[in-house]
Amino acid sequence: MDRPCSLAALRDACHGLWEGDAEAARAVAARQVLLTKPPGSLGRLEALVAWLARWQGRPMPRLDHVAILVFAGNHGVTARGVSAYPAAVTRQMVANFDAGGAAINQLARTAGAALRVVPLRLDAPTADFTEAAAMEEADFLDAVAAGAAAIPPECDLLCLGEMGIGNTTAAAAVAAALFGGGAARWAGRGTGVDAAGLARKRAAIEAGLARHAALLDDPLAAAAAFGGRELAAILGAALAARRRRIPVVLDGFVCTAAAAPLARLASGGLGHAVLGHVSAEAGHRALAEALGLAPLLDLGMRLGEASGAALAVPLLRSALACHEGMATFESAGVSDRT
Amino acid sequence: MDRPCSLAALRDACHGLWEGDAEAARAVAARQVLLTKPPGSLGRLEALVAWLARWQGRPMPRLDHVAILVFAGNHGVTARGVSAYPAAVTRQMVANFDAGGAAINQLARTAGAALRVVPLRLDAPTADFTEAAAMEEADFLDAVAAGAAAIPPECDLLCLGEMGIGNTTAAAAVAAALFGGGAARWAGRGTGVDAAGLARKRAAIEAGLARHAALLDDPLAAAAAFGGRELAAILGAALAARRRRIPVVLDGFVCTAAAAPLARLASGGLGHAVLGHVSAEAGHRALAEALGLAPLLDLGMRLGEASGAALAVPLLRSALACHEGMATFESAGVSDRT
Repeated sequence: MDRPCSLAALRDACHGLWEGDAEAARAVAARQVLLTKPPGSLGRLEALVAWLARWQGRPMPRLDHVAILVFAGNHGVTARGVSAYPAAVTRQMVANFDAGGAAINQLARTAGAALRVVPLRLDAPTADFTEAAAMEEADFLDAVAAGAAAIPPECDLLCLGEMGIGNTTAAAAVAAALFGGGAARWAGRGTGVDAAGLARKRAAIEAGLARHAALLDDPLAAAAAFGGRELAAILGAALAARRRRIPVVLDGFVCTAAAAPLARLASGGLGHAVLGHVSAEAGHRALAEALGLAPLLDLGMRLGEASGAALAVPLLRSALACHEGMATFESAGVSDRT
Repeated sequence: MDRPCSLAALRDACHGLWEGDAEAARAVAARQVLLTKPPGSLGRLEALVAWLARWQGRPMPRLDHVAILVFAGNHGVTARGVSAYPAAVTRQMVANFDAGGAAINQLARTAGAALRVVPLRLDAPTADFTEAAAMEEADFLDAVAAGAAAIPPECDLLCLGEMGIGNTTAAAAVAAALFGGGAARWAGRGTGVDAAGLARKRAAIEAGLARHAALLDDPLAAAAAFGGRELAAILGAALAARRRRIPVVLDGFVCTAAAAPLARLASGGLGHAVLGHVSAEAGHRALAEALGLAPLLDLGMRLGEASGAALAVPLLRSALACHEGMATFESAGVSDRT
C-alpha cells in the first residue's frame, strides 16, 4: 500500500474494500459436515476456519507464516500524569523486546509466530492532545504507511499489538470520539494508575475531546488528533492486510481502538479481523461490543504487546489442523446419524 | 494406585488427599512481580503457573510430558433411544482415533501432547440403568483402576476425555444424583439428538433416578449405578493424578461429571484440576458453577474426546513460557513504577 497523500485519500482507501471469498468459506462449511464429528460440535473452531478461508481467499487456508507486529510510540499526554510508569519505559521495553525478555517474545515462540517490533520516532513524542493535535496530517500518514509497510512479504495471518506509555489514554479518547460516552465510558487503569492518576487521565481525555470537538465526527482526523503513532500504524497495517488478503488478529483495548476507524468508515471494515481476547482494561468489552467483535479468550489479561492476539494463534492452528487432518465419515468407516 | 477392594476403600482413598505445595505456588507469585510487565497484567496466565507449581510440587513447573487419555465405553441405556448415533459408533471412533483421523488426534499434535486411547470392554456394554445398576461394584472398581493405570510413567500434565455413545445420558444422571435438579437440569442434546430423542433421554434419566433413589446420596455408588466405564476410568485417573502430583485438565460435560464425585467426597478434591473449556452441552455451565470451576475457554464446542482440554494446553504452555523466559525489571533495565 502506497503512503496516502492526504486524509481524504486514506478515507477513499478505506472504502470499496474487498469483501472476502464467500466461495472459499462455503467450501470449508461443505467439508466440515463430512468430518468425523457431530455437525457443529467443534463450535467456533469451525467458523474460524471458514473465516480464514474467506479472508485468505483459499478453500484450504494456510498458517505457514504467522507474523506479530508490535508498534511502539511515545505520547505527549504523559506530561499530564496519566500513567503509572515513566515515558522512558517505552524505549526500555523496545530494548527488552529486542533482547527477547518480554512476554510477547515467549508468546510468539510458543505460537510459532515471527515477531517484529517497530518503534516509531520514540525520540519525538506526539504532541499533548489537550493542547494540540497529537499528530499533524503528514506525521499521521507516515505512521499509517509505516504500519502497512511492516507486514512481511509472506504472511498468512497477522497479529497486531502495541507498546507505548500513555497509550490507553489516547485509545480512550479515540474510542470516545468514535462511539461517544466520554472519558467515564472508556478510561481505565491502564498499566495500573492510582485513583489520582485515573482522575488526571479522565480530565486529560475530557480536555482533549473539548479541544478537538470539531473533528470528532471524522474517525481519521480523530485518530490523528489523539494520536499514537503506534495506533496509526495498527490502522495502516489492518487496512493493508485487508488489501493483501491477510486475516488479522486484534489484541486489547489500544489495538482495537486503533483499528476501529476502519469499521466506522466502512460497514464490515473489520470483517477480516478477529479479536484475540477481551482485556481486563475498562472499556475493552464495551468497545468489542460496539464493533460486534466476539473475543476468542477472556483471561483477565491487560498487557498489550499483542499478547492476547498471540495467545489466540494456537486456537487458529488447532482449528485448521482439525479441518485439514480429520477423516470423513466415509473414509473412516464411521456410521453417520441413525 | 492399587485397585481398591471395595467402594468403601475407594471412598477412603478420596479422603486425606495431598493439599498441594503452597510454598511452590508462593515462589511463582514472588517471581511474577519481578517480571517486565505491570503486576497482574497476564491475568489468569499468572494464576495458572502458580496452580501448576502447587500441584506438581515444584517452584518451576514443567510441561515436558503432557498426556491426553481418552477412555471409551458402551452403554446399555442406548437401548432407550437416547442418542443421535448408533452404539456401534463408539468402536468405530476408537478405530478412527487409532488411525489418527479424529479431532483429538489433530488437537493432541498441535498441543504437543501424547494421546492414548483406552477402550473399556466395548463388547460388553454396561447395563441399562433404568433396569439395573450400570455396573456391579467389581466392574466399576476395575474401570477406576484401569483409569489410574493408564497414566504414563512420566507425566507433567494430564488431559482427560471420553468417547461413548449414550454417555451424556449417564453423565446427566450422575450430575442429577450429585447436585439434584433432575433430568430437566442436566439433559442436553449430546451429539445432536432430536426433540423426541431428548424426551426419551429425560425419561430414561428420571427412571434411573427413581430406580436408584436409595443410593443417590453416595457419589461413588451413583457413579457405578449410572455408569459409564469411561466415566469411572476418568474418576480413577483424576484421583491417581492427585496422588502422583500431576495437575489435570478436564474437558466437557461427561468428563466433568465423571470427576465430580471427587469434589463431593472431599472439599478441594478437584483442586488439582482446571476446566479446559465450557461446553455447549446443556448442563455443563451449571455443573462447572456447582463445582466452582472457571473454564479457560468458551468456544461453543461439544465434541468430547478431551478436545476442550487439549485446546487449553497451549494456554498453559504460554503461561509457563512467560514465567520461565521473561526478563526481570532489574535484568532488563526497565524502570518500575513512578
